[in-house]
Amino acid sequence: MRLRVRPLSIQAGGSNIAILGENTASLLGIHSSDRLQIAYKDKCAVAIVNVSASFPRECLGVYEEVSKKLEVGTDDEVEVQFAESPESLHYVQAKIRNERLRKSEIDLIIKDVVERHLSDIELAAFLTALQIHGLSMDEIEALSRAMAETGSNLVLDRKPILDKHSVGGIPGDKTSILLVPIIAAAGFTIPKTSSRAVTSPAGTADRVETLCPVSLSVEEIKEVVNKTNGCMVWGGALELAPADDIFIQVEYPLAIDPMLLPSIMSKKKAIGATHVVVDIPTGRGAKIKTNGEADDLADDFIELGQRLGIRVECGVTFGEQPLGNTIGPALEAREALSTIMGNGPADLREKATSLAGILLEMVGLEDGKHKAEELLRSGKAEQKLREIIEAQGGNPQIKVADIRVGDKKETITTDMDGEVLWVNNEDLAKIAKEAGAPKEKGAGVMLWAKLGDHVKKGDVLFDVYAERGTRLESALKLAANLHPIGLSRRPEDRMLVSRIPARSVHRKAFTLER
Amino acid sequence: MRLRVRPLSIQAGGSNIAILGENTASLLGIHSSDRLQIAYKDKCAVAIVNVSASFPRECLGVYEEVSKKLEVGTDDEVEVQFAESPESLHYVQAKIRNERLRKSEIDLIIKDVVERHLSDIELAAFLTALQIHGLSMDEIEALSRAMAETGSNLVLDRKPILDKHSVGGIPGDKTSILLVPIIAAAGFTIPKTSSRAVTSPAGTADRVETLCPVSLSVEEIKEVVNKTNGCMVWGGALELAPADDIFIQVEYPLAIDPMLLPSIMSKKKAIGATHVVVDIPTGRGAKIKTNGEADDLADDFIELGQRLGIRVECGVTFGEQPLGNTIGPALEAREALSTIMGNGPADLREKATSLAGILLEMVGLEDGKHKAEELLRSGKAEQKLREIIEAQGGNPQIKVADIRVGDKKETITTDMDGEVLWVNNEDLAKIAKEAGAPKEKGAGVMLWAKLGDHVKKGDVLFDVYAERGTRLESALKLAANLHPIGLSRRPEDRMLVSRIPARSVHRKAFTLER
Repeated sequence: MRLRVRPLSIQAGGSNIAILGENTASLLGIHSSDRLQIAYKDKCAVAIVNVSASFPRECLGVYEEVSKKLEVGTDDEVEVQFAESPESLHYVQAKIRNERLRKSEIDLIIKDVVERHLSDIELAAFLTALQIHGLSMDEIEALSRAMAETGSNLVLDRKPILDKHSVGGIPGDKTSILLVPIIAAAGFTIPKTSSRAVTSPAGTADRVETLCPVSLSVEEIKEVVNKTNGCMVWGGALELAPADDIFIQVEYPLAIDPMLLPSIMSKKKAIGATHVVVDIPTGRGAKIKTNGEADDLADDFIELGQRLGIRVECGVTFGEQPLGNTIGPALEAREALSTIMGNGPADLREKATSLAGILLEMVGLEDGKHKAEELLRSGKAEQKLREIIEAQGGNPQIKVADIRVGDKKETITTDMDGEVLWVNNEDLAKIAKEAGAPKEKGAGVMLWAKLGDHVKKGDVLFDVYAERGTRLESALKLAANLHPIGLSRRPEDRMLVSRIPARSVHRKAFTLER
Repeated sequence: MRLRVRPLSIQAGGSNIAILGENTASLLGIHSSDRLQIAYKDKCAVAIVNVSASFPRECLGVYEEVSKKLEVGTDDEVEVQFAESPESLHYVQAKIRNERLRKSEIDLIIKDVVERHLSDIELAAFLTALQIHGLSMDEIEALSRAMAETGSNLVLDRKPILDKHSVGGIPGDKTSILLVPIIAAAGFTIPKTSSRAVTSPAGTADRVETLCPVSLSVEEIKEVVNKTNGCMVWGGALELAPADDIFIQVEYPLAIDPMLLPSIMSKKKAIGATHVVVDIPTGRGAKIKTNGEADDLADDFIELGQRLGIRVECGVTFGEQPLGNTIGPALEAREALSTIMGNGPADLREKATSLAGILLEMVGLEDGKHKAEELLRSGKAEQKLREIIEAQGGNPQIKVADIRVGDKKETITTDMDGEVLWVNNEDLAKIAKEAGAPKEKGAGVMLWAKLGDHVKKGDVLFDVYAERGTRLESALKLAANLHPIGLSRRPEDRMLVSRIPARSVHRKAFTLER
């Protein structure tokens, strides 16, 4: 059937989508979600159809993705016909039935995800089925490989290549800003790519961006690494595993994360990592709640690494409260810089040198933690950080005070004496986000009381920082409702943790950071 | 934040969707699938956001659903802010985790489905989770009630109200066109609503439409039923269970049908049915494959009926081949009319009187099948059918030959002697659809050989009818590839059913008819 093109002047978010009116769709025997093959001159595209009640007859609406591909404009005549659904859709349906997927089938699915041949409905069903049924290690390996192979690779002519990754989940985790310079100062290569925040108040890329540019091209990254052994860049524009970026769009509203392992490890594969330490923050307020869960996840990372030719070790870390005393991009960058310069909180220093120590021992050094501490203490790590900042285009003389934080600030004090019994990661993250983080980089929370601290009536619990008065106000309102820090004279004085007076919606926290 | 409206001149298929450019979304801290509250003058709407890379800054794209609701046009300034996701989304997420859903939670989900507050991604996840985890009878009951309550009802001042429904799955099933007149001729009320084909070559509404109009309003239906005791109308426009129409859009591409029971029974509830016979065609080529499955499904229908105050009995029927000899709307209507006039195939007559007999016995008559046969033999059923046709606006004198079938026809013969060992429902349905059914009503297949028939070389196996030569050709090409009728001299001469030379995609048949 020949139809006249009506270009819509917007993108469909990457997918090839075409619109048909009800009558035209019915004549073609086509329903919403069916595929349509569209031919124009010597070009051809397959689009997923949305049927729209009022769309004019014998017209074909096309989003920009399709009109660009076919080079069609208003009233151009295209020839359309029903197209079979892609073979990969059958494997999506097989996964709903809990059938195991073979490597070739997973390859097809990932190829069609990247080429946008599967609709959001089909992706949602696939990810939901994976979330429910779980994945076998064969499937995880195949997904990791397929996701890396359909993206670009970073080829560095160096070996070994070290890397670090956190499965995410606690606010204020600025470990990488210390660990990367330590490893690079020890003479090893560590081309660290990071994400921006998705559900959290700050991702590593957001933090580093207050020190220097992070959106570097592959060529620029190579130059920085060749000069300094390391880098700290935003991975988003590199398309290391483009399928994952598409999956995240669907996982996010559903608050599911079935792809944790392949998502992380495909990117490690794409940058050619040979030795990776995986940080698994564990605790009530973290993504991983118990040591048992953490151990299982660690085993999976290690086995997957072996299959992919990457040596992996894991560090299970204390995740019951934020790391250090700051949450929010600029506040965290200040704290990281201050710590690498010899000050800063002990927990951050401890965690960074522990994980760096594991990496150093993995490549054959002895007493890695001690070496890492030495690199920190001697100022070599700081010097290396400044080299990296300079190589990425930042100011190597940057001082803590140069990092701008929000000039709207309010202090939250306590009205009782007592000991800090809990610090709620999720509540503090919410307050920092309400204050404007991560987009407003100067916004966030500075914690003055942490687990085990004794406070007196009138002492400061935390400060809220914001760049705008309205954000500060709404963050303070939220803070007043949440009580993110729990105090008691003695634990035995406060046994009731919460009271549930009637049925209520329990909004579960969800962390999606990679 | 204030944004300028850019109306898109198309519908989003019912949902409230708004488009934001990347930069504007980022400033608002909003991701794709987040909700945006949009205020204009005294009107307010919540829309689901799609983030589109190239969309202009500080503009808000809105599909017709949103622009109509807010009465906004180009460059109108609206105030937008982040809106929490609806509470029902948390119950969708709970179902992914296999938590049981309470009645109040299901009510909220169905309300938000009908009001389009859940996105396609969220609906796909919900239906996939239901397909995988299954539903408890409490959940099925709550879904059935909620789906009926969110739609319109047909209130007839009569009792009892009888109905019949098939779970679907075999081609050529024109039973209702005989059963409805039989029941109505017996003096009982049977306001039958039917669907059009979704995945099959003909739905009952498609068949009846070749006899008389089927798109009647609720008032017209009442008039027809008051005049004749019965009707045979298209249920689609009545909005008896609008949630189901939305679910079907998502189930269709995924080839899943977790809502079978609530979908059917919500509509029975909405028309006030008191006695329902459910036909469960069973066999290799049907939706339900084994008698065990059929029995389990029957038990569920009966229990659900009890909970909803509807008496249900089920008929498990032979489903290994098409019913009668015709497939396709007009060919089937011809066969139904011919059968009610005293001719026609025995299997159709047998099935219609058996199911009608069950219904008659359910309302207290004895020897129901015999009574049904008597109404058929005496011509009273035919007379009633003609009354219904007239009341719905058709020609009551309609003759078999008046029903127009396709004038393009080709005959498929056999090149061997033998007995019919199998008749493939799915293949025959595919051929009828390739010939143009259900949209081209005269297209379809006429079967001349059925199970157990002995044929000789040169005998006709089936005819293909089409309205257009191109469709006939492609249907014949398909028929030549499929071999829908399996012959053998003796069964023991043909033990190999199929040969699988290498791995291939097994496209599973999927029936979605309600």
